[in-house]
Amino acid sequence: MTSLHKMRMKALSVLVARAGLDALVVTQPANWYYLTGFTGDSGSLIVRSGTGMLISDGRFTTQAREEAIGIRYIEQKSSLVQSVGECLKEMIVRRVGFDPSQVSVAQLSALRKAAAAGTNWVSVPGFVESLRICKEAEELSLMRRAAKLAGDVLIGALALLKPGIRESEVAAEIEYQMKKGGASGPAFETIVAFGERSALPHARPTGKRLRKNELVVLDLGVILAHYCSDITRTVYVGRAPLRVRQWHQAVLEAQSAAIEAVRAGAVCGDVDSAARQVLAGYKLDPYFTHSTGHGLGLEVHENPRLARGQAARLESGFVVTIEPGVYMAGVGGIRIEDDVAVHPQKTEILTRIPRDLIEL
Amino acid sequence: MTSLHKMRMKALSVLVARAGLDALVVTQPANWYYLTGFTGDSGSLIVRSGTGMLISDGRFTTQAREEAIGIRYIEQKSSLVQSVGECLKEMIVRRVGFDPSQVSVAQLSALRKAAAAGTNWVSVPGFVESLRICKEAEELSLMRRAAKLAGDVLIGALALLKPGIRESEVAAEIEYQMKKGGASGPAFETIVAFGERSALPHARPTGKRLRKNELVVLDLGVILAHYCSDITRTVYVGRAPLRVRQWHQAVLEAQSAAIEAVRAGAVCGDVDSAARQVLAGYKLDPYFTHSTGHGLGLEVHENPRLARGQAARLESGFVVTIEPGVYMAGVGGIRIEDDVAVHPQKTEILTRIPRDLIEL
Repeated sequence: MTSLHKMRMKALSVLVARAGLDALVVTQPANWYYLTGFTGDSGSLIVRSGTGMLISDGRFTTQAREEAIGIRYIEQKSSLVQSVGECLKEMIVRRVGFDPSQVSVAQLSALRKAAAAGTNWVSVPGFVESLRICKEAEELSLMRRAAKLAGDVLIGALALLKPGIRESEVAAEIEYQMKKGGASGPAFETIVAFGERSALPHARPTGKRLRKNELVVLDLGVILAHYCSDITRTVYVGRAPLRVRQWHQAVLEAQSAAIEAVRAGAVCGDVDSAARQVLAGYKLDPYFTHSTGHGLGLEVHENPRLARGQAARLESGFVVTIEPGVYMAGVGGIRIEDDVAVHPQKTEILTRIPRDLIEL
Repeated sequence: MTSLHKMRMKALSVLVARAGLDALVVTQPANWYYLTGFTGDSGSLIVRSGTGMLISDGRFTTQAREEAIGIRYIEQKSSLVQSVGECLKEMIVRRVGFDPSQVSVAQLSALRKAAAAGTNWVSVPGFVESLRICKEAEELSLMRRAAKLAGDVLIGALALLKPGIRESEVAAEIEYQMKKGGASGPAFETIVAFGERSALPHARPTGKRLRKNELVVLDLGVILAHYCSDITRTVYVGRAPLRVRQWHQAVLEAQSAAIEAVRAGAVCGDVDSAARQVLAGYKLDPYFTHSTGHGLGLEVHENPRLARGQAARLESGFVVTIEPGVYMAGVGGIRIEDDVAVHPQKTEILTRIPRDLIEL
């Protein structure tokens, strides 16, 4: 464990103790990576007063020992849940916390059977996430690199947008360039949507070929050194008709208004409203069918949610996407997305490439 | 819905009725894709006597209507769970099934609140999976294509294995070639492990450069038309020393024995034992630290598990991986993996590329 991991484990232990728990079972890979550096994708971490016990299977034993130095490691014998139960018995704990959104009904039932009779399982949502939501300086510098790479890859992909190329070919090239740039992979399935298909906010790349006078939405992000980025730009192949320019202008103004609204202390729902109100001024708000943004970090969708009615407040260290869009079924869609970090006195845009409508 | 989807919905409805349920809530994307063709990754499908009701959010509305023809579609208003609750109320159901491994403790608690008071939530594991485990002819032909592409990409990647190249570069090129070949992406993070790192069965590609006289493990799979493949070959860069050849020969014999053991009616644990016994003959069984294989289909890890003590039996239509390996910490590892389909009278090897130790 680095000093960063130790500090995180200590902060988590404070939350665990305050909740009157003897231990917390961490079942999500991004969470145990955050706390220990272990990159395996199967296992459990039991956190107890500043120390941890990591349990995984034979496939991950060597890497667990290499990565999670200073953490006691147990190789599971039969099932993972069985070994977690045995470790808890050995620790003699009574009140054990778990995250109800990260433990399935079946897992909880098996954990109850495997642990000592009388163990009290306490549902405590979001303990590790409440730490992860505020990015440390080390994390922000990794996120800047992830954002930079996504922007570079997006700019590079514009050269591919010649009539005749397929959505799937552009997506393949984009993900290849991510990896050449050092990414372990895309943060999510890259969206390359031509023409009418750009009206689907979550379109999957198909064999569709690009034609002249079509909209193109490129929505991509990388995972670089474990941290995600997420950026969208909209392109018109040809000279954009007036209504497309107007839509783009409206989305750009909506995005700018939302970015303006981002600051430490701002209510998340208000950031969403800022974008929505601008679009309402253009009578385009009915075509903005999703929320304005989401937190970003080790996972591509984290807290907070920038959506209608969200009462949570932004704090310094949060990183969020700002991504309003308008979608006209059968015609096309426009979305502009950037990643921004909240600082005490300013908002930093991590994805620094031009935001204007790109005409090719 | 195609006739295939209708048939699957009907088969599922039989299971639902037999369990005395009024409806089943399907919460997993691969399961609703299998039943309806909807490719969105957020939503819920409520299945009731041969018909379904699909609920998703605004991002997926257009594609849900395009893909799940003949299924009633509801765009969720506030939260997904809230809308599921309202649909269940409208249906006037009493006993509702859910899969306990696909519903989190938090989701079940929210579903209980959202549905009508008195709704009885019944845990029914693996209903859709029990259909998916037997691949239909249409699925097998897609899986043959996915297996063929994985083999082609693996053979193509051998040309890259020159001293000096990085693990991450080889992985990037492999995934690029998958996509050029029509895959939507890799079925899992491609494993490219050089030298000592090949002793980690789940190594992630790093910046490590290839040297002469090193082992290389390539473990990759594609998702093509939604179906997964999964193949592994081991390469020696140079002329392999005797012990490496012996280890490879032992693993190859173990794999052949396990493939021989695959047939309709065979006990899954016996297939695992077949591989393990061969390795024991070489005193290498302590170095085989994982199970022999797993089912494969819409997901890369499906039932059945070919592991110690598994009492389930193989049936015609099952597709499984057979992937024994030996791992010498600090030295290197060897794994050979193929995908096989069980037919009434024969076993079909889907991944048809040579299995010998490749010396480059």
